[in-house]
Amino acid sequence: MEITEAVKKFKDQIKLLHAYEHAMGVMYYDIETAAPKNAIAGFSDTLAAFSEITYNISVNEENFKLLDFLTEHAGELDEITRREVEEAQRGLKLLRNIPVDEFVEYQRVQSEASSVWHDAKVNSDYALFEPYLKKLVDFNVRFAKYAAPDMDPYDYWLNEFEEGFTQDVLDKYFAGIKAALVPLIHRIGEKEQIENGFLHKNYPVWKQRELSDYLMEVMGIDRADCAIGETEHPFTTGFNKHDLRITTHYYENALESSMYSVIHEGGHATYEMGNSDELIGSSLAGGASCGMHESQSRFYENIIGRSRAFIELVFPKIKEMFPDELKGVSSEDFYCAVNRAEPSLIRTEADELTYSLHVLVRYEIEKKLMHGELDTKDVPSEWNRLYKEYLGVDVPCDREGCLQDSHWSGGSFGYFPSYSLGSAYGAQILHAMKKELDPDRLVREGKISVITDWLREHIHKYGRIKKPAELLDIACGEEFDPGYYVKYLTDKFSELYGL
Amino acid sequence: MEITEAVKKFKDQIKLLHAYEHAMGVMYYDIETAAPKNAIAGFSDTLAAFSEITYNISVNEENFKLLDFLTEHAGELDEITRREVEEAQRGLKLLRNIPVDEFVEYQRVQSEASSVWHDAKVNSDYALFEPYLKKLVDFNVRFAKYAAPDMDPYDYWLNEFEEGFTQDVLDKYFAGIKAALVPLIHRIGEKEQIENGFLHKNYPVWKQRELSDYLMEVMGIDRADCAIGETEHPFTTGFNKHDLRITTHYYENALESSMYSVIHEGGHATYEMGNSDELIGSSLAGGASCGMHESQSRFYENIIGRSRAFIELVFPKIKEMFPDELKGVSSEDFYCAVNRAEPSLIRTEADELTYSLHVLVRYEIEKKLMHGELDTKDVPSEWNRLYKEYLGVDVPCDREGCLQDSHWSGGSFGYFPSYSLGSAYGAQILHAMKKELDPDRLVREGKISVITDWLREHIHKYGRIKKPAELLDIACGEEFDPGYYVKYLTDKFSELYGL
Repeated sequence: MEITEAVKKFKDQIKLLHAYEHAMGVMYYDIETAAPKNAIAGFSDTLAAFSEITYNISVNEENFKLLDFLTEHAGELDEITRREVEEAQRGLKLLRNIPVDEFVEYQRVQSEASSVWHDAKVNSDYALFEPYLKKLVDFNVRFAKYAAPDMDPYDYWLNEFEEGFTQDVLDKYFAGIKAALVPLIHRIGEKEQIENGFLHKNYPVWKQRELSDYLMEVMGIDRADCAIGETEHPFTTGFNKHDLRITTHYYENALESSMYSVIHEGGHATYEMGNSDELIGSSLAGGASCGMHESQSRFYENIIGRSRAFIELVFPKIKEMFPDELKGVSSEDFYCAVNRAEPSLIRTEADELTYSLHVLVRYEIEKKLMHGELDTKDVPSEWNRLYKEYLGVDVPCDREGCLQDSHWSGGSFGYFPSYSLGSAYGAQILHAMKKELDPDRLVREGKISVITDWLREHIHKYGRIKKPAELLDIACGEEFDPGYYVKYLTDKFSELYGL
Repeated sequence: MEITEAVKKFKDQIKLLHAYEHAMGVMYYDIETAAPKNAIAGFSDTLAAFSEITYNISVNEENFKLLDFLTEHAGELDEITRREVEEAQRGLKLLRNIPVDEFVEYQRVQSEASSVWHDAKVNSDYALFEPYLKKLVDFNVRFAKYAAPDMDPYDYWLNEFEEGFTQDVLDKYFAGIKAALVPLIHRIGEKEQIENGFLHKNYPVWKQRELSDYLMEVMGIDRADCAIGETEHPFTTGFNKHDLRITTHYYENALESSMYSVIHEGGHATYEMGNSDELIGSSLAGGASCGMHESQSRFYENIIGRSRAFIELVFPKIKEMFPDELKGVSSEDFYCAVNRAEPSLIRTEADELTYSLHVLVRYEIEKKLMHGELDTKDVPSEWNRLYKEYLGVDVPCDREGCLQDSHWSGGSFGYFPSYSLGSAYGAQILHAMKKELDPDRLVREGKISVITDWLREHIHKYGRIKKPAELLDIACGEEFDPGYYVKYLTDKFSELYGL
């Protein structure tokens, strides 16, 4: 085979696969934001047909040979193509190494598990879900061994979700988090709690929609490249740097809920809108990893969006929009209210301070499950024990405990840590940024675009060309160091609660 | 080939094509309602890739043989499969008979023409568009001859859009319309005009959204099967009877605009939601023809929605929603205002009475173009002459004249008459319905569902199993008779204007 011919074949395939991914992505966005409820059956049929088609395009001997040929000639490829080949190999590593019938069986089990988990959660009936969790753990341990026989299975999955981050890094990371945050949260629990009742007055949805527009404007998001939709559980998706979609959910009696969804998802979108133009049409558009994506969304949500400077910037407008609801409330009151820290049961509703402890619980349980050190039957008791120990809360039922997240039912083990890593990356990036910029002053002056430009130059433009650890090196000039995150949280919340 | 095997192959193909059509349909809906402006380039790429794939699935010798085999064995097929084969043959008739290179060239010209038409319209510059119109007319005459050598070319295209309706039917139809309506419109022009200023006060969009919800509820539209989106030019699309999408556009200073868009598009959706279950997954879901589809949307919009009974039903709620804007306005005032008839320039904004005369102008011009009796250079003068003659209005510029519609630039000649036929079908269907039901009483009592049940039983349930003329026979027990339409309009508007 000629190298030119092989590259053309490979690029044509990327283009074709992108067309299917684009269509499936738009359909997913549509079903979550716009489609009527009963559309789901028809969608499932079309998505199943497309999944089969794309599977057949990728998983076949001819394609394996093509990728192996390109891998052998990696030295002759430009950087983008080389990374595209690497990513394609990475994506197929598992599928090339597991027996087809086991994979088919896994898909069947996983699909059933998702449906059973849903019922189990609604009825808070862990026993219903337990046999499926057991099967999914077994599959994932076995699959890890097929793909990487010499690797610890949990390390394999951790590395799949966040390349370079295995248990040796994460054990140290979470040990530091635990040591610093558990006592800090305990001390805050003894202080007087911050008043936030005014955030839960009645805020009409149509006015909140206008607030979303304003926040996107403040963030410098070009609406010609990024739309906003409404959904049950906010998410962001995108099809190229000129077509991003953020979503939010409006609650009439919770002003900060949609406000911070918009800023968080706006951060995800800002990342992808900042990809360099050369990534358009490549398979490297988007973000480097889940953790790096989360670092950007949380940077805008917490580090910027929950800063005193940001509240001082936006509060006058918010007060103008809701003069009755915010009567007598000062900018400082608002700042404190949106930063109120309080141990709670649900990860997705956790505040900035306690969030990583929710993740830690999941990390410890996954680790034991993957090593056969915890029976799936004992997950609820272990979960409840850890929530009591780390967060001091009593879990009243499994619906608000170990059944709350969908990840395990989808067969994802090792994904959770990236949520927490994102925040830690963010704090480290902030530290590096401060050597060159004064983010607080810029935010106060409404110049968030200068901060975004810095992030684009150091992170966003690379898409998936660089791996997470490489990006940290580019942006910060050093290796991952969770100390910045611990210090950031300790400083911020000590000041806030007068410790 | 075995018949069972051939049917299976054919059904698999329908399923596969449906998956692509579904995805392309959702993408179209998304780009028109939700996508950011700059998404268009990425969408074009994916839609082009899918168009090529679906073209290749249908247009090949193997498939032609399959369809011919099934056509020969039509007697052995069940009714649905037989009609599916017929429709597949119909869809390929042209593609099987024209030289591939001519088709490719046509697509290129058509794509350019659409873009040039857009610029020509914006600049009101007919000369820019004229060479493209000439080419498109030539192509369409030639293509008609390839597909049906013995047929008049305009008859060929008319029959493509509305089976069974060729010039002999339409000449008589439009002659009747012209004879009755032109003098009626003239007499109305001499009467005092109806006051409708209150419809153009300020109606906040968020309140109009609530009105849409109310109107859909009154129509009995199940929101689990039908969503509503917002777009520039309202349309309806659907992917199966459990997934319809209507759209509307809100103008703050034109209450009736979105109100009647919702009812009109809701009528289209009601048609498809009424398909029988056996059509799910077949290629016969949807409506029998453009004209029949339009008959249902206009039935709900005009015959029901602009009736005195309907206004009496909904006005109390509308007044409750807009008490200041509608202060001093009575139900009768509102009824008169939404029925105000006035000759105008733009077809899509025309009232119920004058609408068909707009269509007549296009019919006469298309007919002459297809027969070489009118030079494309002379379209504007002919257009302006006919508007003056039929509607009594002076066309100030081609943007508001012969450049207003996109149809010709898309290569559609013969489509316009179906818009008018829809209204005529509707009036004939109303006459038949009145033999069994009292629609006015039912509407006044809020029992629109009884009317919808009747329409479902006589029209909606059949989807495309029956052709338009067959449906008229089922619903009315007689052939197409435009007399009902003329009488309906004459009665309604004579009463309204006290003639």
